[in-house]
Amino acid sequence: MIGISIYNLIQELFPISRSITGDGVRKTLSIIKNSHLPGLKVHEIATGTNVEDWVVPEEWNIFDAYIKDVNNQKIIDFKDSNLHVVGYSEAVDKEISNSELQAKLFSLPDLANAIPYVTSYYQRTWGFCLSQNQRENLTDDSYHVYIDSKFHKGSLTYADLIIPGQSEDEIFISTYICHPSMANNELSGPGLGVYLAKWLGGRSNRYTYRFVFAPETIGSIVYMSENLNILKDNTIAAFNLTCVGDNNNTSFLPSRNGNTVTDKVSKHVLNFKKPNHVTYDFIKDRGSDERQYCSPAVDLPMVSIMASKYGEYAEYHTSLDNMDFISAEGLESTYQLHIDCIEILENNYYYESNIYGEPFLSKRGKGYMIVGGIENESSSSSQLILDVLSCCDGNKDIVDIADKLNMYAKDLFGIFDYLLNEDLIKVLS
Amino acid sequence: MIGISIYNLIQELFPISRSITGDGVRKTLSIIKNSHLPGLKVHEIATGTNVEDWVVPEEWNIFDAYIKDVNNQKIIDFKDSNLHVVGYSEAVDKEISNSELQAKLFSLPDLANAIPYVTSYYQRTWGFCLSQNQRENLTDDSYHVYIDSKFHKGSLTYADLIIPGQSEDEIFISTYICHPSMANNELSGPGLGVYLAKWLGGRSNRYTYRFVFAPETIGSIVYMSENLNILKDNTIAAFNLTCVGDNNNTSFLPSRNGNTVTDKVSKHVLNFKKPNHVTYDFIKDRGSDERQYCSPAVDLPMVSIMASKYGEYAEYHTSLDNMDFISAEGLESTYQLHIDCIEILENNYYYESNIYGEPFLSKRGKGYMIVGGIENESSSSSQLILDVLSCCDGNKDIVDIADKLNMYAKDLFGIFDYLLNEDLIKVLS
Amino acid sequence: MIGISIYNLIQELFPISRSITGDGVRKTLSIIKNSHLPGLKVHEIATGTNVEDWVVPEEWNIFDAYIKDVNNQKIIDFKDSNLHVVGYSEAVDKEISNSELQAKLFSLPDLANAIPYVTSYYQRTWGFCLSQNQRENLTDDSYHVYIDSKFHKGSLTYADLIIPGQSEDEIFISTYICHPSMANNELSGPGLGVYLAKWLGGRSNRYTYRFVFAPETIGSIVYMSENLNILKDNTIAAFNLTCVGDNNNTSFLPSRNGNTVTDKVSKHVLNFKKPNHVTYDFIKDRGSDERQYCSPAVDLPMVSIMASKYGEYAEYHTSLDNMDFISAEGLESTYQLHIDCIEILENNYYYESNIYGEPFLSKRGKGYMIVGGIENESSSSSQLILDVLSCCDGNKDIVDIADKLNMYAKDLFGIFDYLLNEDLIKVLS
Repeated sequence: MIGISIYNLIQELFPISRSITGDGVRKTLSIIKNSHLPGLKVHEIATGTNVEDWVVPEEWNIFDAYIKDVNNQKIIDFKDSNLHVVGYSEAVDKEISNSELQAKLFSLPDLANAIPYVTSYYQRTWGFCLSQNQRENLTDDSYHVYIDSKFHKGSLTYADLIIPGQSEDEIFISTYICHPSMANNELSGPGLGVYLAKWLGGRSNRYTYRFVFAPETIGSIVYMSENLNILKDNTIAAFNLTCVGDNNNTSFLPSRNGNTVTDKVSKHVLNFKKPNHVTYDFIKDRGSDERQYCSPAVDLPMVSIMASKYGEYAEYHTSLDNMDFISAEGLESTYQLHIDCIEILENNYYYESNIYGEPFLSKRGKGYMIVGGIENESSSSSQLILDVLSCCDGNKDIVDIADKLNMYAKDLFGIFDYLLNEDLIKVLS
Repeated sequence: MIGISIYNLIQELFPISRSITGDGVRKTLSIIKNSHLPGLKVHEIATGTNVEDWVVPEEWNIFDAYIKDVNNQKIIDFKDSNLHVVGYSEAVDKEISNSELQAKLFSLPDLANAIPYVTSYYQRTWGFCLSQNQRENLTDDSYHVYIDSKFHKGSLTYADLIIPGQSEDEIFISTYICHPSMANNELSGPGLGVYLAKWLGGRSNRYTYRFVFAPETIGSIVYMSENLNILKDNTIAAFNLTCVGDNNNTSFLPSRNGNTVTDKVSKHVLNFKKPNHVTYDFIKDRGSDERQYCSPAVDLPMVSIMASKYGEYAEYHTSLDNMDFISAEGLESTYQLHIDCIEILENNYYYESNIYGEPFLSKRGKGYMIVGGIENESSSSSQLILDVLSCCDGNKDIVDIADKLNMYAKDLFGIFDYLLNEDLIKVLS
Repeated sequence: MIGISIYNLIQELFPISRSITGDGVRKTLSIIKNSHLPGLKVHEIATGTNVEDWVVPEEWNIFDAYIKDVNNQKIIDFKDSNLHVVGYSEAVDKEISNSELQAKLFSLPDLANAIPYVTSYYQRTWGFCLSQNQRENLTDDSYHVYIDSKFHKGSLTYADLIIPGQSEDEIFISTYICHPSMANNELSGPGLGVYLAKWLGGRSNRYTYRFVFAPETIGSIVYMSENLNILKDNTIAAFNLTCVGDNNNTSFLPSRNGNTVTDKVSKHVLNFKKPNHVTYDFIKDRGSDERQYCSPAVDLPMVSIMASKYGEYAEYHTSLDNMDFISAEGLESTYQLHIDCIEILENNYYYESNIYGEPFLSKRGKGYMIVGGIENESSSSSQLILDVLSCCDGNKDIVDIADKLNMYAKDLFGIFDYLLNEDLIKVLS
């Protein structure tokens, strides 16, 4: 089961301390490239570079951090969880009173054993995150706080992989690699991306595939800015991979447009395979890199097919979004949904009938006899041939036809092959 | 009542042994031509002619057939019912064992007193059809089976009738004449076709009318192939006449397109006159000559307005679909539905108002006085004139306007005449 | 409260005897011009002038009228109510029998204390209106009827007011001034019109505003005919002011087209401010000057936002539609609905995003930090900025965007101003 392989990769990447810049991202991409995707290209963009409305920030690295009590005991230690430090915290090393410390702490009263995930990328500060249970034990009058972090004019790191196909038209698959140790959001996304790329790399494809592994928001803005024309001109479908790891829910976030071929194919697959999936609203519920790629002036046909959606489960953005929250079964399920979407996109065409009236199926060994209104055994496949052909008017693609027949598009591939082989239909270019 | 005349014609045609070729078709068309439609043109197309994907089959005629038991008694006799022989059976004359015979028999366990209707046009074989009750009496060890039938390179017979109108645009009405002794499917169709043609022949029409009487499937493919351009270029509306004889249901099969003027007019008529009618789906439920005429590359605007639809009643394709199953009342009802559709099509135009604001109806003797919010007696017809005029924006035909006013289109003909006479509207060409 | 000012103006105009022509109209327009709208232009059009399908009728004035009983007592007196005389009654002065009189009387059995409003503009007659209670007291054998009225070749009077804006595109606001002493239908309309014009006259407007005060039907046909091209070319939105005075209901009559920007804005305002409003059907329920302005060949984008709609309340067209039926609260409410529609129209544009991806809000002091999935206090306004921007694709106006966000359009004006100031969007011309 491929879900196990994805799970194992995620487990390997889990301990690394990632942020939007820094060595954690580099280490993550290096494992992916060296062990799985040798064709992956890693890029660096220098601190201070203007990208659209943004500026690439200083690079941030962190080496150690803790809070010590009056007895010199480390009661909060970055080595226990890289979530303990607010992302992009500046260095600090001093005694402070309990009340001063409280103003620098983040915890979740309603989820008392979870360490929250907090960042402050564009406002220089420092802080610690801890569980509410830990916080309630802080009874000393003063504490020693220590963060050994460093900012410098370095670069932001991201990577892409192009798998060429017969067409220059591209299917674009994006995922992000900027979160520290959390599993559903976000490592399930890169994990799934790696295995989709491996599967596609082993096939001959109609479309070219473009995979991007970049820090969320600033990374996708960098990537979009550097590849704007090719993304806008060539992308015929796009998927954002996020929160694809658990087995509790299936969630769908449509594109901004809502009516693209990616939306159509995804809805078809989800309606057949996950009829209980929840559909969210782009404007009200968007929250990942589709905010950039689907922005009005870019307007890529990007959707997100997810398990439990970010913001919709209690463990989201906490230490409880861990390797127990996701599962090989959940990863297998979202993998299959994406594979089905891709296979349908690869086989999706508008067909036009070549024939006036119905074909003479008897001469092809596909005829049938009607007995008192009851069809005999050979008739149902013949009927399906005729039903599909009666839909081939040049205005319907495979998904439209499958929806009209209330069938799964993949189950019609053989019928379309038969009709093409018999020269009964042609592909519209 | 015209339903009685149609019923009587069907009764006259009922005993004839028809198939997709042969003298039964010729005799049927000859009665129609000689007694009702002298303008009918009968055509023959030779065995072996290529038509689209098909080849015209050998002509088949049958003269006698029976099964005799060991006592030399005819226990199944073609003279009792022409349904007893599988259509297109080859000749046979021999003793066979009971078990060999069983493999050649067709009966219906769930409808024990009905002889099923079975054919094998394109796979050479022979067989008998009988009721389940008859079959259960077959206890002898062997039987003599005898079929005196003949295949030869003859021709397939069909007929058409053109009733010229002011316009070259055509309304196309098709029905089929290839079934042996069955009443709703199929003789009700030709019966209705004859009387619609007689009614139209006695009128001056806006449109040209084309009637076709041909064997189902292969006959309609022949007709379509021989008249492809004129059918595609000139047909503005089309009706397939089938299963129009009983008084139990009203059924509607839309065109493949679903959105043609024939669909619009038919739905309007059925919604007003038969609000409980059942609407079927073209892809899932089609089954008559619309399979050819509505095929994507032909795409005629053809619908079927039916009583009990083929495949949807127990007696379908059995000896119980007989003269008791249909009725003069049922035929009268479907006749009127088709007449209404035709009258609405003949009177259907897009109108545009000639006037800014409302007309001054008082000077035309159509004004009215309002009393405390209660309209007086002359006001309702005046109101209807104004209501109709307020819809004449050039984007709505008569049916659209009638639907908007929740009225029957035929009841508005007088209003449109008034508005035209008063020069308040003009017809859009 | 402006509703009180409108109420007071209506009270001043209430006693005047108006009809479609005559001095009552002139006196009404004179009060409006002299006390409120000095820019109002009063026009006269001569009896006998051809306008479209109509002819301007003779001018009618009435000076006195009564019915006297055998004791010479005035039992019905025009001085008590100008509704007592059928509009456009010819002069009469004679003794008639009780039964002759009955044929000339109008009363309402189901509303026994109401005097109905009856007119006979285009059929010369005379008559009296009275309450059913009064009528039942008429037991004398004969009565003296007296109407001192006069027809002459005079003119029909109407007025308009143009408030120029930055654009030549116009918002057209029409109301009528031909009914005698009734409050909701009709004086609420002119009352509201005056105060909308005063408010607009004190502002700098994007659009030019055109107000018309004219007798219903014949007056609006005259106005339309005299200003046809400018109305058709320049009108981008239009409101008919009628029945805007009571506080019992909110009613909406869409334009004939149903899909204009006036319809869109009005529905948006009503859905937010009056979710229980009743929407009527243009064809089935129209009944005021939209019958002219929305007629197919004119087709202005005119709607009516009303309180209790004409024809839908018992007091309509009777003496009970008086100053007690309307209220300052009702007038205030419909005033605010119209103000909101106008403010939204004035601020309505199609916007296009200037930016690829999202803007960097942190550098603008609008960034925010995410804490364990819970947004902090500054985040909701930032989120709204991003939500609105994600809708600015050039295909949605402000109302479309507000509907998409389930917000009131007026509450988004500040966001659009911010985005414009930051150069993040541009207006599509």
